[in-house]
Amino acid sequence: MKPSIPKGTRDFSPTEVANRTYIMNTIKTSFETFGFQPIETPSFENSSTLMGKYGDEGDRLIFKILNSGDFLNKADDKLLSEKDSLKVTSQISEKALRYDLTVPFARYVVQHQNEITFPFKRYQVQPVWRADRPQKGRFREFFQCDADVVGSKSLWQEVEFIQLYDTVFSKLGLEGTTIKINNRKILSGIAEVIGAQDKLIDFTVALDKLDKIGQEKVEQEMLDKGITEEAIQKVQPLFSFTGSNIDKLASLEKMLQTSEEGKKGVEELRFVINSIAELGLKSASLEVDVTLARGLNYYTGAIFEVSAPKGVKMGSIGGGGRYDDLTGIFGLKDVSGVGISFGLDRIYLVLEELGLFKTVDLPKPKVLFVNFGEDEALYCMKAISELRKNDVKSELFPDSAKMKKQMNYANKREIEFVVLVGSQEMEKQEFTLKNMVSGEQSKLSLSELVNQLKA
Amino acid sequence: MKPSIPKGTRDFSPTEVANRTYIMNTIKTSFETFGFQPIETPSFENSSTLMGKYGDEGDRLIFKILNSGDFLNKADDKLLSEKDSLKVTSQISEKALRYDLTVPFARYVVQHQNEITFPFKRYQVQPVWRADRPQKGRFREFFQCDADVVGSKSLWQEVEFIQLYDTVFSKLGLEGTTIKINNRKILSGIAEVIGAQDKLIDFTVALDKLDKIGQEKVEQEMLDKGITEEAIQKVQPLFSFTGSNIDKLASLEKMLQTSEEGKKGVEELRFVINSIAELGLKSASLEVDVTLARGLNYYTGAIFEVSAPKGVKMGSIGGGGRYDDLTGIFGLKDVSGVGISFGLDRIYLVLEELGLFKTVDLPKPKVLFVNFGEDEALYCMKAISELRKNDVKSELFPDSAKMKKQMNYANKREIEFVVLVGSQEMEKQEFTLKNMVSGEQSKLSLSELVNQLKA
Repeated sequence: MKPSIPKGTRDFSPTEVANRTYIMNTIKTSFETFGFQPIETPSFENSSTLMGKYGDEGDRLIFKILNSGDFLNKADDKLLSEKDSLKVTSQISEKALRYDLTVPFARYVVQHQNEITFPFKRYQVQPVWRADRPQKGRFREFFQCDADVVGSKSLWQEVEFIQLYDTVFSKLGLEGTTIKINNRKILSGIAEVIGAQDKLIDFTVALDKLDKIGQEKVEQEMLDKGITEEAIQKVQPLFSFTGSNIDKLASLEKMLQTSEEGKKGVEELRFVINSIAELGLKSASLEVDVTLARGLNYYTGAIFEVSAPKGVKMGSIGGGGRYDDLTGIFGLKDVSGVGISFGLDRIYLVLEELGLFKTVDLPKPKVLFVNFGEDEALYCMKAISELRKNDVKSELFPDSAKMKKQMNYANKREIEFVVLVGSQEMEKQEFTLKNMVSGEQSKLSLSELVNQLKA
Repeated sequence: MKPSIPKGTRDFSPTEVANRTYIMNTIKTSFETFGFQPIETPSFENSSTLMGKYGDEGDRLIFKILNSGDFLNKADDKLLSEKDSLKVTSQISEKALRYDLTVPFARYVVQHQNEITFPFKRYQVQPVWRADRPQKGRFREFFQCDADVVGSKSLWQEVEFIQLYDTVFSKLGLEGTTIKINNRKILSGIAEVIGAQDKLIDFTVALDKLDKIGQEKVEQEMLDKGITEEAIQKVQPLFSFTGSNIDKLASLEKMLQTSEEGKKGVEELRFVINSIAELGLKSASLEVDVTLARGLNYYTGAIFEVSAPKGVKMGSIGGGGRYDDLTGIFGLKDVSGVGISFGLDRIYLVLEELGLFKTVDLPKPKVLFVNFGEDEALYCMKAISELRKNDVKSELFPDSAKMKKQMNYANKREIEFVVLVGSQEMEKQEFTLKNMVSGEQSKLSLSELVNQLKA
């Protein structure tokens, strides 16, 4: 009988809602300051919109909605008797819950292309659902906060997204984040240089271990994966890939001089790095990271990922990049897009760990009126109406319960002020205001009360 | 290939999101002013939490989520071969989308009863889903905005909910709403007087037509439905049920004097009516309506419903009431609850019809910087960074496209100001600011620009 909620989902208490709203509003306000506009799409889409867009694993993790009514009617008898769940799915389910915000956005752009002014800068803050195995920081229902621009290939947008990350994290008081940047064209250049696109992931995975296991072991791993000695020679600069971003760009340029695409990648990256150097960041650092590959088959230009400040154990708290053919899957060709996402739930955990929610206003009344009976309550309600007109959060304890019970309620909810009204106060048209922290009490007229609590 | 969305769902454009956010924020802010705290619950619940709570029709309209993986594995062969959709459902689906906010709230209260301070005043603004036939103002995904108190039987709460409706609609500029109120105990009293609970709905439905078809035809309909001549005699006061709320209460009292429960209902209603008369309303009217029965089997005390201003064709835009055993379904007995709901989508349609969105800030930048090339753009980006620090929504046109194209973009998005920067401006460290409405142009320093656009 004890009620529960599905695995991987959460209830949010008032304090949690307030903290989450604080993060979301900070992100939304920054999005709007940067010129982005909000859209919203339905929680469920036609299955055909989502299926096949996230790979086989993604298809498996999409939550499907059962058709209403006599759904088995249309199902194939043979498939049912064989219990072929995979094939029966499409016969009994036509809708599925949103898996991310990018595919619905692409669908939106194509469907509404005639109403949209391009370049279209949209943001979207909505929940998504994945039938993933739940673990710390990973849920089956979670919010994504995305900003994307479609309809322009300008690199100024990459520059602005880095500024946007820096702005949001600075506003949240989260200093010391690292925005890592790479470019798919550089990865393609490396693939060209090492001789095979299909070895690229093995290569970057091995390279990423350099700090931990040293050059010799990394090279051995590469050889084991079938990358030739000669190829490894050609990308030697990556084994001493340290120094400033400018230094890194110089070694990349040298290394990738035989690859047109690689050179283009270096040029793009240089534009972004130089522009940010000119414009400055408030609290984040920008760092070229050639091992960054996120969704390799998806991005076509810049790739971003944000790490929490050093010392906080947490995966990436944001990521994004450029994809040159976002809307092609829905029939609208040659629309370039670039965007970033904020991981709300992980940002929440980081802010919590660092004690950065202190400034958030909790949703509680500023003042509680103690209820001593019907006449007193009516007298109080008149004052409460006046306070609320002045946007002072206030409430009457609903029952004329024992004083102790009412004061307990005020204490538990950490309400700062209590008003006491007995026959004496009513006669004199006064209110006794008690500060629950200092214990201080004063007798005030209605206008004095309003003025004091408004302050 | 043309993409679409499921029937009964909607995409929201930037303007629609802004207008919806305006309504929701008005409601949320008012909820908090009245001392309510937000909670959020998962979009899907265990099916056992939802099924059986809304009647057979409700069960049918709940969206079920297909189990992940090899869901047919656990299904009964015989039921599958018989294609018994109803019975197979519970074998292949364990989760379902939220159908309303009340049942998940009851589940929340029971599950978290040890963390909650009672009386618990919560609000919740989240989407719900129903597999209903879509029509004007009825969708398969829509938002509910609920405020409830659990843990107190005080009638001051009914008084406050009426004030809350009045506050929200007044803030939205929606004047002339009617808050209709009834009490389940009065309906029970009428049932007692007419001799049968099971005739009550027929009775109120017939009575509701009095204005349109006249007393004679109403009485005939009642007789046709099996209500006796004698019973109709006993409730004669209802046929001349006009005048002030006080007059109505007086005739109800007289009519229901043989019913203890009926008298209790009159007493409760009188307390609420008198208190509101003392406290006053800003723009709504309160009206006793004995034909109001919403979810008869659910409410146990007050029943509320709000109508849009006269002249606007729209069903109710809000409703609610008291239910004495909200959490009993989940094993926690004797917790009384009372609450109201705002119908966001219908309120939207009413505000739109009456042109009441004029004051809403649309999500667009205040200023667009025209892009004349790389050097100019960098110069502009420095100013844009400064403006954004000062919360001025601003953007750079991403490409150095033709002037006409950039100005078209500014016009289409109705951007108020445009900044033009060429080599001359860069030399003099100036910015040419153009007001797109008046056509007026001026040359300003960076700090002058910031000050003017901040204003």
